[in-house]
Amino acid sequence: MRSQATALRSKDLLGIEQLTPEEISLILDTAEGFREVSERPIKKVPTLRGQLVINLFMEASTRTRVSFEIAEKRLSADTLNFSASGSSVEKGETLIDTAENLMAMQPDMIVIRHKHPGSPKMLADLLPASIINAGDGAHEHPTQALLDAFTIRERLGRLSGVNVSIIGDIAHSRVVRSNIHLLTKMKANVTLASPPTLMPAEIEKMGVRVVHSLDEALEGADVVMMLRIQLERQSKMTFPSLREYFNTFGLTPERLRRANGGAIVMHPGPMNRGVEISSDVADGPCSVILDQVTNGVAVRMAVLYLLAGGHLQES
Amino acid sequence: MRSQATALRSKDLLGIEQLTPEEISLILDTAEGFREVSERPIKKVPTLRGQLVINLFMEASTRTRVSFEIAEKRLSADTLNFSASGSSVEKGETLIDTAENLMAMQPDMIVIRHKHPGSPKMLADLLPASIINAGDGAHEHPTQALLDAFTIRERLGRLSGVNVSIIGDIAHSRVVRSNIHLLTKMKANVTLASPPTLMPAEIEKMGVRVVHSLDEALEGADVVMMLRIQLERQSKMTFPSLREYFNTFGLTPERLRRANGGAIVMHPGPMNRGVEISSDVADGPCSVILDQVTNGVAVRMAVLYLLAGGHLQES
Amino acid sequence: MRSQATALRSKDLLGIEQLTPEEISLILDTAEGFREVSERPIKKVPTLRGQLVINLFMEASTRTRVSFEIAEKRLSADTLNFSASGSSVEKGETLIDTAENLMAMQPDMIVIRHKHPGSPKMLADLLPASIINAGDGAHEHPTQALLDAFTIRERLGRLSGVNVSIIGDIAHSRVVRSNIHLLTKMKANVTLASPPTLMPAEIEKMGVRVVHSLDEALEGADVVMMLRIQLERQSKMTFPSLREYFNTFGLTPERLRRANGGAIVMHPGPMNRGVEISSDVADGPCSVILDQVTNGVAVRMAVLYLLAGGHLQES
Repeated sequence: MRSQATALRSKDLLGIEQLTPEEISLILDTAEGFREVSERPIKKVPTLRGQLVINLFMEASTRTRVSFEIAEKRLSADTLNFSASGSSVEKGETLIDTAENLMAMQPDMIVIRHKHPGSPKMLADLLPASIINAGDGAHEHPTQALLDAFTIRERLGRLSGVNVSIIGDIAHSRVVRSNIHLLTKMKANVTLASPPTLMPAEIEKMGVRVVHSLDEALEGADVVMMLRIQLERQSKMTFPSLREYFNTFGLTPERLRRANGGAIVMHPGPMNRGVEISSDVADGPCSVILDQVTNGVAVRMAVLYLLAGGHLQES
Repeated sequence: MRSQATALRSKDLLGIEQLTPEEISLILDTAEGFREVSERPIKKVPTLRGQLVINLFMEASTRTRVSFEIAEKRLSADTLNFSASGSSVEKGETLIDTAENLMAMQPDMIVIRHKHPGSPKMLADLLPASIINAGDGAHEHPTQALLDAFTIRERLGRLSGVNVSIIGDIAHSRVVRSNIHLLTKMKANVTLASPPTLMPAEIEKMGVRVVHSLDEALEGADVVMMLRIQLERQSKMTFPSLREYFNTFGLTPERLRRANGGAIVMHPGPMNRGVEISSDVADGPCSVILDQVTNGVAVRMAVLYLLAGGHLQES
Repeated sequence: MRSQATALRSKDLLGIEQLTPEEISLILDTAEGFREVSERPIKKVPTLRGQLVINLFMEASTRTRVSFEIAEKRLSADTLNFSASGSSVEKGETLIDTAENLMAMQPDMIVIRHKHPGSPKMLADLLPASIINAGDGAHEHPTQALLDAFTIRERLGRLSGVNVSIIGDIAHSRVVRSNIHLLTKMKANVTLASPPTLMPAEIEKMGVRVVHSLDEALEGADVVMMLRIQLERQSKMTFPSLREYFNTFGLTPERLRRANGGAIVMHPGPMNRGVEISSDVADGPCSVILDQVTNGVAVRMAVLYLLAGGHLQES
C-alpha cells in the first residue's frame, strides 16, 4: 500500500493512536526518501534551515535523543538540547512554565521525552510549536513504532497480514502500546506474551492475541519483537530472577526455530543480553536490530519534515 | 529617546553600571531590529558566521543559557557550551586557567555565568575576547536589565518618568542591582520593597526609594517587578514561612489594583507560583512575563552583534 | 624534514605507535595550514560540510573535548556530543552495543575517550567510521603528542636531535607514552625523571634515558615537559605529600636555569600549580603551555581532514 495522504492533519505527533493508516503510510513513504540521504557523502539537505528544534529530554535517553538530533542536523535545522539536570526544573519550575518559557523563544518544534503520560499532549494544546512525543511514561513512543514498521515493511515488503509477536515486559512498555496501535491499524496480526505479572488486564481489547509462553508466541511468527526488561521502571522485581526470566522468556536460536522461515528479530534497545535475548540471536542472521536504529533517523527526518511542512503552510 | 551612540565603547558587557544612557538606548534600538528576525519563517541572519561563542556556565541556568544559545544561532555563530560538571574545573583547575585555556582556542566571545561577583571582569581584563556577563553572584545580570527595559519601553513607550516598583528578595538579587543602575540612568523612578531582612543597608544611595510594604510599593506604580525568592542562595530562611511571605509580599489581583491603570507585571523567572506571585497575576492580562523571555533573545542578539562589531573593527 | 607522505594509511588514529615518521610529518605540515585558518576573521572552511562527527567522551575532559569540537566546527562538520552520564551506558549497555548503535546512525568519524586501554582499537576493528583516540586509559593520547611535536617544531625549528626531558608521573600518563613513541620516531632524545614509584619498570626499552632527579633531567634540555600529577588516577598516594613532591620534582625558575638557553617549558594541562610546576614558570617567558592549546585545534583539524580524505577516497 502506497500512501494517498499528502500531509499530516495535526501540527503534532503525540501518538500512533491519532494517526490514520494513510498518514502512517505517508510517513513511511517519506522516510524512504530520507533513508537515501544518509547514504550520500554529504548527508544533508537544507529543508529545515533556519528552523529551531528544541530537544526537551526530561528522562535519560541515548539512541532516541541522538537519533532525533542527527535527523535534525541532516535537515539543517538549528538544534538545542535541554535536559532536566542543571536547569530551572531543579529549582522547582513546573513543566508548563518551562514549556511556555521555551515557547517564548519561538522554537518551531519541540521534541519531548517525559516520565508523565500525556505531557506531550499538554504542551501541544498549549503551544503553537509542533510537539513530537519521544516517549511519555508507559503511554506512547510513536517514532519507535514507525521505525519498527518501516523496518518490517523494508524486510517483508508489507505490514498487512504479517504475524508480529511481541514478547516481554508488556505492562511497562510505551513501545508496545505504540506498536499495537500501528500494527492493528495496518492490519498486521499481533500476538503478545509475557509473565502474567507483566501483562496488563484486558489488553485483548486492543485487538491483539495474548498467549502464555514464548514457544506459543514464536509459532508462526514473521516478526519477533523482544522488549527490554525495564528494570529501572519496575518498583519491585515481578519475576524471581533474571536467570529464570531468560530460561522462560529469553530468545535463543533454538527457540527461534519455531518462527516462520525468514522471520526477523527486533529489539528497541538498549538490550539486556542474556536476559530477554541471547547474544547469538542479537548478533545473528535474523536480527534487524541495527537496521532499526538506522531507519530511526530516516523516520524522524520524515516526521520533522512533514510536521514542518504543515507548520509552514499555516504561517 | 532614540540612540545617538553608534557603537559600544567597551569590548565587553560586564554590567549596566559601566554603560552610558546612549549606549543603553543603542542596545535597545538595535534589539528592535532583531526582534523582527525572530518573527520570520527563516529566523536567521549571517552576521556572526564563522565566529565562535563559548557559553561558560559555572552555575545552573535554563532560560539565560538557552536564550543566549538561541541568540547566537540566529546570528549564525558557532556555539560551544562549557559547564562546570564533567570538566577540568572538577579536577581543581582555577577559573583563570580554564579561561586562558579556552582563550587559547581563539573564541571571539565568551558568555560567562559564575557565582563569584567580578569573575567576568577578571576575564575581561585578561582576555582579548569579548566577555558578556550572564550573571555573577549577587552583582550584575546586565542582559536581564536590558530585556526588562526593552519590555517596559515596548509597552509604555518610554523609560523616563516611569514608576517602577521592585518587590522581593532585594539583597540576593543581581537582577535588581542591574535594574537599579539601568532605570536610574534612564530617569525612571525606582521604588523597592521587601522584608527588612532582605533589604540591603543604605541602598537608598543608589537613587531609589525604599518602602516597607507591598501596598505602599504598588501605589502609583506603572511597572511592578516581582523578584524570585532565591531559596537556593539563602543560607537560612530569612522569613518565617513561604505562606507568610505570600501573605505579606505576594502579588495578588486584589493588591495589584493599587497600581496605576495599564500597569504591567514583570518577573525574571523562574517563578515560585504562590510564593512571590499568584498564578492569577502571573497568567493575567497585566503580565508581560513571557514577553520578557521573547525580548531576551532579541536583546542578546543586539549585544552580541554590537560587541562583535566593535571587536571586528579593532582587528 | 618536510613530509613525503600524501595520505594516512589507516582510516583511524589509534596511537602514535602505528604511524610512520612520514605520516607524522604529514599531519604536522597539514596542521600548519590550519593554524592559519584560526587567525582569520572567519575561522571556518567548508571541508567537512555534511559530515557527522560524534564525540564519545566516557571520561571527564575539558580541553580535549572542547578542542576537538572547535576543530570540527572550523571544518564545518556536524558534531554530536555523547557522554556516559544520562545515557544508556548508565542502563548497563556495553561499549560495543553503544558503538554499534551510534554506527547505525552513520557517523563519518567517532572521537573516543575511554578509561580502558584499547577501546578505540576495538571500535576501529568493528566499525567502518574513522576512529580517533582522544585518550584511552594509560595507553595513548596521540593528538596530544602531535600538538606537542607541532609546538616544539614551531619553536625550535626541528624535532631531530632535540633534547626533550619529561618529568613527573610517568607511570599513569598516556601523554608520555604517545610522546615517547613520537619523539623517538622523529629522532629526538628523550629523558625521563620521576619518583621511583611513578616510573614503570623497563621503560628504557622504549629508547629513552631514565634519570633519578629533576636537576639531572634539566641539564642540557631543550624542551622541559612537566606532567600532571594525576591524583584522580592513583589508587593511593605514591609520595609522602604534595609539598614534598614540589620540593623534589616541582619546576621553579631557579631549577630551570640548568636547561639549555632558549629551552621551552610544556605541560599538557590541567596544571596543578605549586605541585609539579610553580606559577612563575607556568606564566613565565619560557612557557609555551597556551601555544600547545592553540596548536591543539590546528593539529586536530589536520587529523580530521586527513582521515576524512582517506575515508572519502575509499567510498
